[in-house]
Amino acid sequence: MPVLLNPDRAPTLSELLKAIPGGLVINTVPGIGQWQNPVIAGVGSLANAGSNEISFIVHPKYLDQLASTQACAVIVLPEIEEKLSVSPEPIKFSRIVCKHPYLLYARIAQWFDWAKQPARELSIHPTAVVDPSAVIARSVTIGPYAVIGPRCKIDEMAQIGAGCVIGADVAIGASSLLHPRVTIYEGVKIGMRAIIHSGAVLGADGFGFAPDPSLAKGAWGKIPQLGSLLIGNDVEIGANTTVDRGALENTILEDGVKLDNQIMIGHNCKIGAHTAMAACVGVAGSTTIGSRCTIGGAAMVSGHLTIGDDVHVSGGTAVTANVSKPGRYTGVFPFSEHADWQKNAAVLQQLSSLRKRLRVLERDSEN
Amino acid sequence: MPVLLNPDRAPTLSELLKAIPGGLVINTVPGIGQWQNPVIAGVGSLANAGSNEISFIVHPKYLDQLASTQACAVIVLPEIEEKLSVSPEPIKFSRIVCKHPYLLYARIAQWFDWAKQPARELSIHPTAVVDPSAVIARSVTIGPYAVIGPRCKIDEMAQIGAGCVIGADVAIGASSLLHPRVTIYEGVKIGMRAIIHSGAVLGADGFGFAPDPSLAKGAWGKIPQLGSLLIGNDVEIGANTTVDRGALENTILEDGVKLDNQIMIGHNCKIGAHTAMAACVGVAGSTTIGSRCTIGGAAMVSGHLTIGDDVHVSGGTAVTANVSKPGRYTGVFPFSEHADWQKNAAVLQQLSSLRKRLRVLERDSEN
Amino acid sequence: MPVLLNPDRAPTLSELLKAIPGGLVINTVPGIGQWQNPVIAGVGSLANAGSNEISFIVHPKYLDQLASTQACAVIVLPEIEEKLSVSPEPIKFSRIVCKHPYLLYARIAQWFDWAKQPARELSIHPTAVVDPSAVIARSVTIGPYAVIGPRCKIDEMAQIGAGCVIGADVAIGASSLLHPRVTIYEGVKIGMRAIIHSGAVLGADGFGFAPDPSLAKGAWGKIPQLGSLLIGNDVEIGANTTVDRGALENTILEDGVKLDNQIMIGHNCKIGAHTAMAACVGVAGSTTIGSRCTIGGAAMVSGHLTIGDDVHVSGGTAVTANVSKPGRYTGVFPFSEHADWQKNAAVLQQLSSLRKRLRVLERDSEN
Repeated sequence: MPVLLNPDRAPTLSELLKAIPGGLVINTVPGIGQWQNPVIAGVGSLANAGSNEISFIVHPKYLDQLASTQACAVIVLPEIEEKLSVSPEPIKFSRIVCKHPYLLYARIAQWFDWAKQPARELSIHPTAVVDPSAVIARSVTIGPYAVIGPRCKIDEMAQIGAGCVIGADVAIGASSLLHPRVTIYEGVKIGMRAIIHSGAVLGADGFGFAPDPSLAKGAWGKIPQLGSLLIGNDVEIGANTTVDRGALENTILEDGVKLDNQIMIGHNCKIGAHTAMAACVGVAGSTTIGSRCTIGGAAMVSGHLTIGDDVHVSGGTAVTANVSKPGRYTGVFPFSEHADWQKNAAVLQQLSSLRKRLRVLERDSEN
Repeated sequence: MPVLLNPDRAPTLSELLKAIPGGLVINTVPGIGQWQNPVIAGVGSLANAGSNEISFIVHPKYLDQLASTQACAVIVLPEIEEKLSVSPEPIKFSRIVCKHPYLLYARIAQWFDWAKQPARELSIHPTAVVDPSAVIARSVTIGPYAVIGPRCKIDEMAQIGAGCVIGADVAIGASSLLHPRVTIYEGVKIGMRAIIHSGAVLGADGFGFAPDPSLAKGAWGKIPQLGSLLIGNDVEIGANTTVDRGALENTILEDGVKLDNQIMIGHNCKIGAHTAMAACVGVAGSTTIGSRCTIGGAAMVSGHLTIGDDVHVSGGTAVTANVSKPGRYTGVFPFSEHADWQKNAAVLQQLSSLRKRLRVLERDSEN
Repeated sequence: MPVLLNPDRAPTLSELLKAIPGGLVINTVPGIGQWQNPVIAGVGSLANAGSNEISFIVHPKYLDQLASTQACAVIVLPEIEEKLSVSPEPIKFSRIVCKHPYLLYARIAQWFDWAKQPARELSIHPTAVVDPSAVIARSVTIGPYAVIGPRCKIDEMAQIGAGCVIGADVAIGASSLLHPRVTIYEGVKIGMRAIIHSGAVLGADGFGFAPDPSLAKGAWGKIPQLGSLLIGNDVEIGANTTVDRGALENTILEDGVKLDNQIMIGHNCKIGAHTAMAACVGVAGSTTIGSRCTIGGAAMVSGHLTIGDDVHVSGGTAVTANVSKPGRYTGVFPFSEHADWQKNAAVLQQLSSLRKRLRVLERDSEN
């Protein structure tokens, strides 16, 4: 990976660990020579880290990579340190012993991400069009060509990227970050520390129509979408994801919800706290999903369902009925070489008759 | 739901019903006291409507909710009014008897949506870049930072949102509404009363390539997409939906087509009048879909197919062959607990041999 | 199709063929009268070409259309020309004999696409916000309201559409074309001759979170996405497609990759040269796909997989395991009338027990 910090700005290992909150580190085992307390300029994978980078190992199956890593320091599980400590050969790199290496790695990466930021200049770009009735906190940054509608309220330290369009009466909480080209329809409320990626569209009309034969045979009359969209704190929303406003009630994303790119959340949905969805998921309207669920990529959830807490849906699965029991749920057609698939798929259309034929044989054999 | 109109602007029930076209109301049964002809400030669901809101009931299974609703007026089916009329207890709320409560609700919601609009100021924002050769009708609204290309024609009452980019030679019909950040490529024609949501991209190049080994082994040469995209009247297109221009002929969306968010329509497709598609649907190139079809969410339709009129595709279904007969079509792998899925999916790969084994047993038993 | 060039700018057939590189033409058989060497004003399908347009036939099954075409010249396979040359009736149109009619058609269409372009005015629109530290080549075009960040490098003949937002330290190669409203996050590198369609978001954060119970039960801590996105030469990326930056390493699209609309490529993926993906495909993070693969529309590929070269995945297929052997792979649930599906899908949940019952019968019959 690219070295992130110049050597003169990079911390030593002990300085770095002091800056990381959380008491995750059990102990540190110094490396050899210059790597006793090395200067850490960045983070890298075992295979690719340079000699001024820190890395991590989460499973013994990567011990081979550990043996050849160039990293000057490695976060290790206690059981791996046990093995290393009795290694016949000396270990060059420093080891940081930790029961949750991935979490510690995440926090160290967060620190580097923060450290490489330039000092922020708080400002509204002169080309931004901000309605005079909007209430903008003193530390907000608004990028070029952003448009902020009437009566918006944007709180301290929020950042609005270039080309964002924010409708009337929108509220954006403190320290929230809108990347460029986000669109927010009128009346949407977003909590603190949100991260919204480019191309996301929040609060567009839900898909609501009533058959209206008075217009034409088969024609649809639009049902205005009069609800709004409420988003809690610490929510992240991926690029080009869309979350629609409610029809009568509000669509709701609770605290800590994480949505990847290209996701669609229909009107009136309620997504529980800390539920995470991978890319390309679709949730149809009026469905309630519980807290701490994970929805795998390209899964779809039908409308008007209730999914409980702690439900885990595999990628590519179509959830078409309520799920109350926590656990993992799957429904994916296995892939295979095309010719094999053709043979087996043909039988799929005869399953019902196959079962009948089997029943006939069973009855025969019982007699 | 939020109360939509201040009491001084809100109509009485009789005023409201007079304003709704269509002769849908069979009769009105007045409520008790102040609710004989109540002031209606908004629309709400049975469970959540406030005492100055109108609600509706579409099925007897919601009678429990009806019993406890706070709504001052409720749209009811004739068969429900029959039950209410013989209720031993007095019914407080007014009833509007109607054979199509959902349609009447939709029209009332449309009325409120219209009534809450501020008087429109017709104008071109000073920051909009409008090519001097574009023909803009006198009542058009163009938002900040919109860009309108040469020779565009934008008709009466059309609204172009902030940050929209409209290429050369585009036509947009009267009363059409483009929400912010819509992109329209050159030459696209859009009819009257369209609603296009943010992030939609209309008329981008179709995906057309020919193998060109003269460039490199396996390389693709681009086939220019010389057709355009024609969109009829009364079409709605959802947020971040993409409809590509044609390769040689035009891509066509006929009158009244309704597309939800995150939909992809490939080049050369023709979508018939009043066909509606839920979110995340993909239609591959050169496919023709008839009129009055519905395509469920996340369904996909292969390319070069012909789907007839009045075909209804379930969500999540892959349509891989022509469909001429009206009706409902489905192909979704049922989901289940992961362990059950694993057991059953393993057998899927052996279906063909299972059928053979069954045939052997049948032959044995015949002998 | 629309006639593309005015007759005074349109070439004769022989002029046109001289302008097309590649030695694809075996020979030309002149038509009759004015169609011996006709003026060609455009390209059309057999069924719709006008009398001043060229068309092509790729398969004998279209001979009926050929018989009635109005085209003044047709690209034909040698075996079709053999049949035409012994036709009892005279053939009016000129024939261009060629072993790869589709490729020749593509190149002719490219020529017309180029010929209809107005002479380009090279310029930076006065409303574009270009950071003074950006290095912009002299022949670059930048549209209205584009925003170009610090230290960007944009090479000769590149075109940046209206409303594009390009972050810091981005490089864009010569002759690349960004349609309006593309977003590129900081540090992304794009090669030469790229075509990026509207709404694409390149280099947004990958979806990386670590469980962080110190925040709340079930909460997720963000893992900063410190890698970047590297894109080779001759890559095309469709409308509203998203390609995420890497977590530690870079996400990579090699030369000649073609991505249709609404595609999602997760962080750390590596897509090999000349691999093409149809619309709505999702590739989860850290997956490597080889060269010259094709991925059908709405297919999904799980994360952390390795797919070899020359692998072809059918549309709608979920690839959930490594694939090393070239060939075609499929896994799609066949669709059928809904009632048939219901009957057969019910049995799906019993496949494992069905197999057991069959085994019991087989054992019985063996005894």
